[in-house]
Amino acid sequence: MNIIDNAAVQQHLAHVRIVMVNTTLPANIGSALRAMKTMGLCKLVLVAPKTYPHPDIDALAAGASDLIDQIQIVETLEDAIKDCHLVFGTSARTRTIPWPLLDARPAAQKSMQAVIEDRQEIAVVFGREDRGLTNEELALANYHVTIPVNTEYGVLNVAQAIQIICYEMRMAAVEHMDTPVDTDATMQVTDEESMHWDEPLVTHEQMEQFYPHIEKMLAEIEFLDPKNPRLLPLRLRRLFGRIQLDRMEYHLLRGIFSRVQALNNGTWKKSAEKEDQPNA
Amino acid sequence: MNIIDNAAVQQHLAHVRIVMVNTTLPANIGSALRAMKTMGLCKLVLVAPKTYPHPDIDALAAGASDLIDQIQIVETLEDAIKDCHLVFGTSARTRTIPWPLLDARPAAQKSMQAVIEDRQEIAVVFGREDRGLTNEELALANYHVTIPVNTEYGVLNVAQAIQIICYEMRMAAVEHMDTPVDTDATMQVTDEESMHWDEPLVTHEQMEQFYPHIEKMLAEIEFLDPKNPRLLPLRLRRLFGRIQLDRMEYHLLRGIFSRVQALNNGTWKKSAEKEDQPNA
Repeated sequence: MNIIDNAAVQQHLAHVRIVMVNTTLPANIGSALRAMKTMGLCKLVLVAPKTYPHPDIDALAAGASDLIDQIQIVETLEDAIKDCHLVFGTSARTRTIPWPLLDARPAAQKSMQAVIEDRQEIAVVFGREDRGLTNEELALANYHVTIPVNTEYGVLNVAQAIQIICYEMRMAAVEHMDTPVDTDATMQVTDEESMHWDEPLVTHEQMEQFYPHIEKMLAEIEFLDPKNPRLLPLRLRRLFGRIQLDRMEYHLLRGIFSRVQALNNGTWKKSAEKEDQPNA
Repeated sequence: MNIIDNAAVQQHLAHVRIVMVNTTLPANIGSALRAMKTMGLCKLVLVAPKTYPHPDIDALAAGASDLIDQIQIVETLEDAIKDCHLVFGTSARTRTIPWPLLDARPAAQKSMQAVIEDRQEIAVVFGREDRGLTNEELALANYHVTIPVNTEYGVLNVAQAIQIICYEMRMAAVEHMDTPVDTDATMQVTDEESMHWDEPLVTHEQMEQFYPHIEKMLAEIEFLDPKNPRLLPLRLRRLFGRIQLDRMEYHLLRGIFSRVQALNNGTWKKSAEKEDQPNA
C-alpha cells in the first residue's frame, strides 16, 4: 500500500486558503469547514459574512472546531488575497467576462505545483449563495475555475463546490509528492489502478510454473487434449494473466490442482475411503 | 475549453447506479439525488430504506424530481445488483476484510471504460450512515472503493461521498469519450490500456451460481471443510470477483468443476479405464 505522509500533505494544503465572500447561511460556513478538514485544508477566510458567529457553524463543523478558531474575517476580498500568488475565482461557465478558465482538476494540479515547487500561497474564492462573485471580484483572480457539471442542471451549492475543490487539492497534493513507499509494500502499484494488497503479487516467472501445472492437471483429467489443445491454453493465460494472482491465491490454486491430480491418480483418497481401508 | 456532448456523457452515466443500503435519513437520499443529477447520473436504488417516502427527500432533491420518480426500492442488496457486471462497495480504509481496493478516481475510470467499451452495468454501493456496509455485503462487490481523505479526520458523510463518486464518474466519462479537444484544452485525455472482449461478461447473478459450484466441488474433494471453511470462500470471491469472467471462461471453469466432481464420485472414468472395461 502506498503510505501517504498525511502530515506532509497537510503542510502543503495549509498554503491553500478557501475564501468565502458575503456568505449568507452559517450552515454553509460550517459545511465548508467540515469539507476542508476532511481533505486536510485548514485556512478559511470570510469576507464580510452576513451572519457570524452563529451556532449553525459550530453544529455543521462538528469535529473541525480547531478550524473555527483559525477563521480570518476581513472586510474586502483584496484583504483576503493580498499575500497570495495565485488566485482562483469560482465561476459558472456562463460567466460574462472572458478570462483564463481551468477546470477544478487542472486548477488543483497547478496550485499544488505552485505550492510544492515555488512555495506560493493560493486562494480559491467562492461567491454569494445567490449570485456568486461580481465581475469586479472575478477580475481580481489569476484564473477562473469551474467544476464540470451536467449542463442541464448545474446547481452545485457553495458547500458542495468547496467539497470538490478541496478533494481535488488533496488529490493533486498526493499525486505531486514523491511519496515514499514502505519496504513491505510488496505489491507494485500499477499506474492506472493503484490497487492495494496485503499479499505480494506473484511474478511472471512463478506464473510460468502455474500454466504448465494447470494444463498438466487438465490433461490428466482429460479435459484438455495435449495433442489437440485448441484455444484452451490461450484462454487460461488470458484468464489468469489478467487476474494478477497474489501469493496466497497462487498457492491456493496450485493446491487445488495437486489435489485433483492426486485424486485422479489414486495417491489421495477421500477420508471415508481411507477409514474403510483398515476394515477391508 | 473542451466541447462536451452532455447528452452522450449522460447516456454513459445512465449505466452507473448508486445503491444506498438501509439509509436512515431521508435528507441523505435527497442530497444524493441532487449530487447525482448535478453530475448527470440518474439511477438510484434504495435497499430497504428506513424512511421512504419522506418530504425531506423532495425538499433536498429540489429540481431533481425526475430522478425521484425513477428510484427503485428493493429488499436486498442482491436484488439491487443482480444484473450488474461490476460492483463497487464503499469502504473506509480500516475495513476488516482484505479485498481489491481502488481509490475513487481509478474506480471511476475503470467503470467508465467498462461502460463505454463493453456496455457493462455498474453499481456503487453505499452503506448505513452509522456503520457502513457489513462484511457480507462488502464480499458481494468486485472491488472496494475508498475516497482519499485526511487520515486524522476522515468523516465524509454518505451524501458527500456520493457527491465525490458522482463527480469522478462524470470526469471519467468525459475523459474517456472521444471529445474534440480544442487548442487551449486544459484536460488531457488519458490513453489507458483498454481490454476488448469478444465475449459478454457474466453478471453478478451468474456469479452467484459460480461460487456455490466451486465450493461444492472443493468440499467434495475435501479441500474445503464445509463445517469450518475458514477464509476460503471469501478468498475465492475476492479472486474470481476481480477477474470478471466472460461467458466462455465461466462455462470453461464450471466445466472443469463438473469434471472434477464426476471424477470424484465415479460417474466419469478415464478413457483408459473405459477401454479396459470391455476387456475385464
